[in-house]
Amino acid sequence: MNIAIIGVGLIGGSIGLAAHERLDGAFVRGFDASDAALDAALERGAIDERSDSAASAVAGAELCFVCCPVGALGEAVLEALSAGGDCAVSDVGSTKHAVLESVAAAALPEADASRFIGGHPLSGAEASGVAHARANLFEGATWYLTPTDRTSGIHYDRLYRAISALGARAAAVPADAHDRLMATVSHLPHVLANLLVHQAAGTLLEEDQALPATGPSFRDATRVAGTNPTLWRDILLTNREAIEAELGAYADALDRVRSTLRESDGDELVHWIEQARGDRQRLLELDLAGGPVSELRLSVPNKPGIVAQVALALGEAGVNIVDMALYPAPDMQSGAIALWVTGEHGAERAVELVERLGYPAAVVDAGDEA
Amino acid sequence: MNIAIIGVGLIGGSIGLAAHERLDGAFVRGFDASDAALDAALERGAIDERSDSAASAVAGAELCFVCCPVGALGEAVLEALSAGGDCAVSDVGSTKHAVLESVAAAALPEADASRFIGGHPLSGAEASGVAHARANLFEGATWYLTPTDRTSGIHYDRLYRAISALGARAAAVPADAHDRLMATVSHLPHVLANLLVHQAAGTLLEEDQALPATGPSFRDATRVAGTNPTLWRDILLTNREAIEAELGAYADALDRVRSTLRESDGDELVHWIEQARGDRQRLLELDLAGGPVSELRLSVPNKPGIVAQVALALGEAGVNIVDMALYPAPDMQSGAIALWVTGEHGAERAVELVERLGYPAAVVDAGDEA
Repeated sequence: MNIAIIGVGLIGGSIGLAAHERLDGAFVRGFDASDAALDAALERGAIDERSDSAASAVAGAELCFVCCPVGALGEAVLEALSAGGDCAVSDVGSTKHAVLESVAAAALPEADASRFIGGHPLSGAEASGVAHARANLFEGATWYLTPTDRTSGIHYDRLYRAISALGARAAAVPADAHDRLMATVSHLPHVLANLLVHQAAGTLLEEDQALPATGPSFRDATRVAGTNPTLWRDILLTNREAIEAELGAYADALDRVRSTLRESDGDELVHWIEQARGDRQRLLELDLAGGPVSELRLSVPNKPGIVAQVALALGEAGVNIVDMALYPAPDMQSGAIALWVTGEHGAERAVELVERLGYPAAVVDAGDEA
Repeated sequence: MNIAIIGVGLIGGSIGLAAHERLDGAFVRGFDASDAALDAALERGAIDERSDSAASAVAGAELCFVCCPVGALGEAVLEALSAGGDCAVSDVGSTKHAVLESVAAAALPEADASRFIGGHPLSGAEASGVAHARANLFEGATWYLTPTDRTSGIHYDRLYRAISALGARAAAVPADAHDRLMATVSHLPHVLANLLVHQAAGTLLEEDQALPATGPSFRDATRVAGTNPTLWRDILLTNREAIEAELGAYADALDRVRSTLRESDGDELVHWIEQARGDRQRLLELDLAGGPVSELRLSVPNKPGIVAQVALALGEAGVNIVDMALYPAPDMQSGAIALWVTGEHGAERAVELVERLGYPAAVVDAGDEA
């Protein structure tokens, strides 16, 4: 199968590597605005041949993945479709409505327009660039496809089979539903984290007095703040409507909690926090699909090797750590480790193992941080 | 020095342990509503003697730490002061205005009221209970003291010296400033995380279709959601005014970003995200006081032992990991690790070490997650 990849970064490069490993007779042509990226992709074996343009990469291909930044997707997809032929064209952008609009708005012959199917692999939190591409990036990952009523069945089927072969779980979803979902679980958290950082910086950086540690809750809540400004500008703009709706709903909920607080309604506050606890647990369990997730806290000396020692002990016993956060004390001499583990007896087993190393450990169930 | 500890959980127990280790001739009497807690405190050597009441613990003491939950502080502090004598009484609650109000509102003789000084050690993210108490919990930690113009110098000085001896950095701050600061860096993030979880649960749990991973940004942003409902009810209620002000400012900022988005002002969005990036970096550097913090991303197989291997290699080379987050892929077979390291060459050194282990690694500077 001849495959064209437009944009050979982390995602494009990983598609190339996975295709070589998992698709019989895959031959991959790549195009990228950056020569250095193309060189690196060729050297890593992600592509077999460099092309001088999107059109020449697509010529003769059965499948084309457009892996450009979101802001450049529309144009690149149209270029790939305009090259004609029988190629199924997809993209990997984080928002889907805008690129579908671009295709709809262009006066393409129906035969060309019907060959486009929007796509979005949820491939995690890797560093960007083809250097970080890997053949198993999509293994088990959800890969959304957003066909429309114009989509040709043959081309959809070809794309679906290829994505499944790459190891992903292809899932068809309407573009608008996709964008609303991403607005909820990804775009809204980003906006909120940015706002929180701004507000804290205003208070803390402009105060005269010596300032304290911001603390773990702040650190966790703002971890995604300030990520890649141009990428995020494009995500925010291309998913503007869904994000506006999420922000509106959030503002309303914020108003409600302000009222509850103004009324000093303690019972309602307890109810509200308990609900959040249950909701997060259910979402995490959905998320990690590994059954119940338990949170542990360990108190440890903060010296090199401790994280290793703990992780090693758990690893050897087969306890699966799905998340971990370190909370060093201000002197950096001691600290706490939060661990999230799966499995029915994972938590008890972990506590036992950690205590055997001589560190106090506990399953957190009512939380402690204040 | 005779010390009374009212409430022997994590903080009270740690004060007892630290006092025994660091204060010459410390003799510690403890009282707690829970007999089991008192037994455990005695057994761990956090206290020398159980008392039957707060008053009898305080009798003859020079220093008393009230370490009850925030909601019970006012009453417990008044009880300790009412026992008379010459004891300096302090507390360790997360909010300070309310407990000062309780003391001010009680018709105590001036000699008694002047012996109270509010306090709040920032002691991190440990699990609660005396089982997790440790003598070095306060080593290097900021310990806020909130004296008023009624505070007796002799008692303040006694408390200040003891806290310094326990290893903490005592810092005097007006109670209102303390509460505003905590509202910004701790209470606001908690409220926002709870709201975010509610909203996502509304969208995700009630949808019919199969649902995706919520993703790392959601996980990070909601890590503190749902923590200890009654503790947080009391924090929210006792710091109501400052939190209302923070929520109001946040709602205004949310309105502004909604306008920017409505106007599709891309330049302003980029500027806004860049500012958030810079702000967070500056706050983290303040926070960790260890110079610049760099973020790395590694792509690794997700199998037991990998975290250990990476942490071990970095630890042996003296690279200090201050934060860490795991992002397993949905299949749990692969994933990314985000690491935050300090030191001028910490990041480059870490990348080199990790790549020597055979895993791709990169310093994140423009962010990648989308």
